[in-house]
Amino acid sequence: MSNKRVAVIGAGPSGLAQLRAFQSAKQKGEDIPEVVCYEKQSDWGGLWNYTWRTGVDEDGEPCHCSMYRYLWSNGPKEGLEFADYTFDEHFGKEIASYPPRAVLFDYIKGRVEKAGVRDWIKFNHVVRDVRYDEGTGKFTVTARDSKNDAETAEEFDHVIVASGHFSTPNVPYYPGFESFNGRILHAHDFRDAREFADKDILILGTSYSAEDIGSQCWKYGAKSITVAHRTAPMGYKWPDNWQEVPALVKVEGRTAHFKDGTTKDVDAIILCTGYKHHFNFLPDDLRLKTANRLAAADLYKGVVWNKNPKMYYLGMQDQWFTFNMFDAQAWWVRDSIMGKIALPDQATMEADPKAREAAEDALEDDYACIRYQGDYVEELIAETDYPSFDVEAACQQFYKWKKHKKQGIMEFRNHGYTSPMTGKEAPPHHTPWKDALDDSLESYLQT
Amino acid sequence: MSNKRVAVIGAGPSGLAQLRAFQSAKQKGEDIPEVVCYEKQSDWGGLWNYTWRTGVDEDGEPCHCSMYRYLWSNGPKEGLEFADYTFDEHFGKEIASYPPRAVLFDYIKGRVEKAGVRDWIKFNHVVRDVRYDEGTGKFTVTARDSKNDAETAEEFDHVIVASGHFSTPNVPYYPGFESFNGRILHAHDFRDAREFADKDILILGTSYSAEDIGSQCWKYGAKSITVAHRTAPMGYKWPDNWQEVPALVKVEGRTAHFKDGTTKDVDAIILCTGYKHHFNFLPDDLRLKTANRLAAADLYKGVVWNKNPKMYYLGMQDQWFTFNMFDAQAWWVRDSIMGKIALPDQATMEADPKAREAAEDALEDDYACIRYQGDYVEELIAETDYPSFDVEAACQQFYKWKKHKKQGIMEFRNHGYTSPMTGKEAPPHHTPWKDALDDSLESYLQT
Repeated sequence: MSNKRVAVIGAGPSGLAQLRAFQSAKQKGEDIPEVVCYEKQSDWGGLWNYTWRTGVDEDGEPCHCSMYRYLWSNGPKEGLEFADYTFDEHFGKEIASYPPRAVLFDYIKGRVEKAGVRDWIKFNHVVRDVRYDEGTGKFTVTARDSKNDAETAEEFDHVIVASGHFSTPNVPYYPGFESFNGRILHAHDFRDAREFADKDILILGTSYSAEDIGSQCWKYGAKSITVAHRTAPMGYKWPDNWQEVPALVKVEGRTAHFKDGTTKDVDAIILCTGYKHHFNFLPDDLRLKTANRLAAADLYKGVVWNKNPKMYYLGMQDQWFTFNMFDAQAWWVRDSIMGKIALPDQATMEADPKAREAAEDALEDDYACIRYQGDYVEELIAETDYPSFDVEAACQQFYKWKKHKKQGIMEFRNHGYTSPMTGKEAPPHHTPWKDALDDSLESYLQT
Repeated sequence: MSNKRVAVIGAGPSGLAQLRAFQSAKQKGEDIPEVVCYEKQSDWGGLWNYTWRTGVDEDGEPCHCSMYRYLWSNGPKEGLEFADYTFDEHFGKEIASYPPRAVLFDYIKGRVEKAGVRDWIKFNHVVRDVRYDEGTGKFTVTARDSKNDAETAEEFDHVIVASGHFSTPNVPYYPGFESFNGRILHAHDFRDAREFADKDILILGTSYSAEDIGSQCWKYGAKSITVAHRTAPMGYKWPDNWQEVPALVKVEGRTAHFKDGTTKDVDAIILCTGYKHHFNFLPDDLRLKTANRLAAADLYKGVVWNKNPKMYYLGMQDQWFTFNMFDAQAWWVRDSIMGKIALPDQATMEADPKAREAAEDALEDDYACIRYQGDYVEELIAETDYPSFDVEAACQQFYKWKKHKKQGIMEFRNHGYTSPMTGKEAPPHHTPWKDALDDSLESYLQT
């Protein structure tokens, strides 16, 4: 066991969950493999590690960060809490339910600082390639060490891909984009809503980015928000200067033309058109190809790469559950690598994701989807020593959250929810979200 | 000879010069190697292939394009004219000296369309890796075919890197950038100056990007332009709403603080801070590391990679001469590969770039630098069948250009220059640059 070497690619929430999983086994006296985590950024936290940069980072690699200033959690923290490290433990007091990015970043870091795993990570190392050698049964991970401007290559028995799938933007073209007289950007490059104060903003898309970036622009003084949808409007009770319109057809100068024949002059176009599962460091035989869905393709138990079961993927599903689902996966992957969980035969491994896909396809609504992913989390947790928690209670918080959004899309963050870990209900935040312009940790933690 | 295989990485001005060089030999009845050109974009032209996209392209790779709308050549076309394909031949008439991007793109395409080399190029193929095998003496080039979402790997006897060095931005950090309440962008991501109309713009840098992007913003209605320099101001006679200030020290909110204690409130910060030689597809043993200078490091004759002379680099120098220098290099590289030019011993190949560096270091001013690069072009041309041309005459046009810029930085593009290829003087453009808001090919070619 102790001779095994494991590579973890990415030190974001998934990768850090994996490091914590191995460290918790070590803490219990178990003999764990050597773990090397490759992180292209200079700090840990993945998407939660904010940068003002857009485009490429200081090492010439595509920026990983898709977050922006003033971002508050768009779901209650009670749905993502670590079972082995509660918010109460980290902050030493109860805090409100929708923390800003800096607060959640602090929470993520708190657990791994306590675990002492920072020196398992090679920062500023971008993985360039992973190869599997049938002869030796080992993987070679090739990375570029940007600080030393040198290449490294190391052999591993297992590779765990935890590089996320909300970093490579899906950017559609519409006629006229090449001659639009304003800024066109993807949500990935959105940074400071104040840039758009007094502007007429067009947003394409109807998912979380559209909803939240539109809300940010509204909160920080945009003149108007127009959201174009291809299938259906989001349908929330929007403010007066916010309208939902049919699909964009084309742009002429600064004028956007929609499918119903209406037009709107706009200053900027923000493409909230989603992200791609993009693994430019992987060859064809190791590269996951999946839609962004709850049952990811070709992954047994949602984590084992069917086509080479020495390889694992974390967090590749679309997500209601996040941090604690990554934990459930990471503990399971750890036990698979450490031989505590045996993999079944190939046919069983291939049937598993197909059955999950079929079950997902039969789901009727978002509530059922939440429950479905909750069941998946419970299934994995039951097979490891990850602290059991009341997944049903977590689902209940998600249900409440969805109802609160329907009641008031600009007010839902003013509510408090019950922790499935402590059973306690969070206090309301000291300031309504729409009036809280300072998103710092210090401001949020004031009582 | 005909069994040899040559990979060219990039189908921009340098790569296309290489294709044309081989094709011209074939046209003369010579037996040329098989040439495969890898291009990550969906069309040829390199930087001249404009896109409205910023950040990553449709395939999730960093955008190659650093050009922007309304860009006109910043030097006279008489300095970059192809010796084997004149502007007169392409356009069928004389045109003015500072063509907009679309006109130069058309000119570049014209020659290679005539040569019929488009099917030598694999478009949407991003090179992921190049490896040299000491045993076989061959290179393996691994690329990702984005259209088919598949990896390809092929063997070559020679690799010619023509991927440019004005695509990966050098992006410095200054205190306060993380909380600036406007847009911060590198010149690489600048696209439409109208976005900055009525805005107060801060530009960092004093080279071509700073000069030209500032001029674009001024031309299209920016409220004010402030350019901060670290060493010396550009010193041109700027318009009234343009000021040059000492280095930026920090930003607070929207306020920029400069080294002399002065401040300026600005809406956007444009970093015209240069580019990096960045080859994320190359391992250490094949990767050029050089400053952006006229005598690039480790390249014999400016093109042969000393550390493995089967590998070549095109256009890696800082540039006064461009298109015709790439031609001079491409013809020379072709003849080296085809055995018409023999390489000297290792010591001589290593001494060559060192001697060039020493000679460059001794140059006194820009005029001497132009002459120095002109001499280099002449040196290469003399050793191949590239059409000889009056390099001295080209230098003279550059000298005039520099004087015209000093006379009037917003008027220099109204002048005409003498072609070193045809000996004819270009007519003045029908509209002064500052009044010509339409930069289309159609508008420019009107008589």
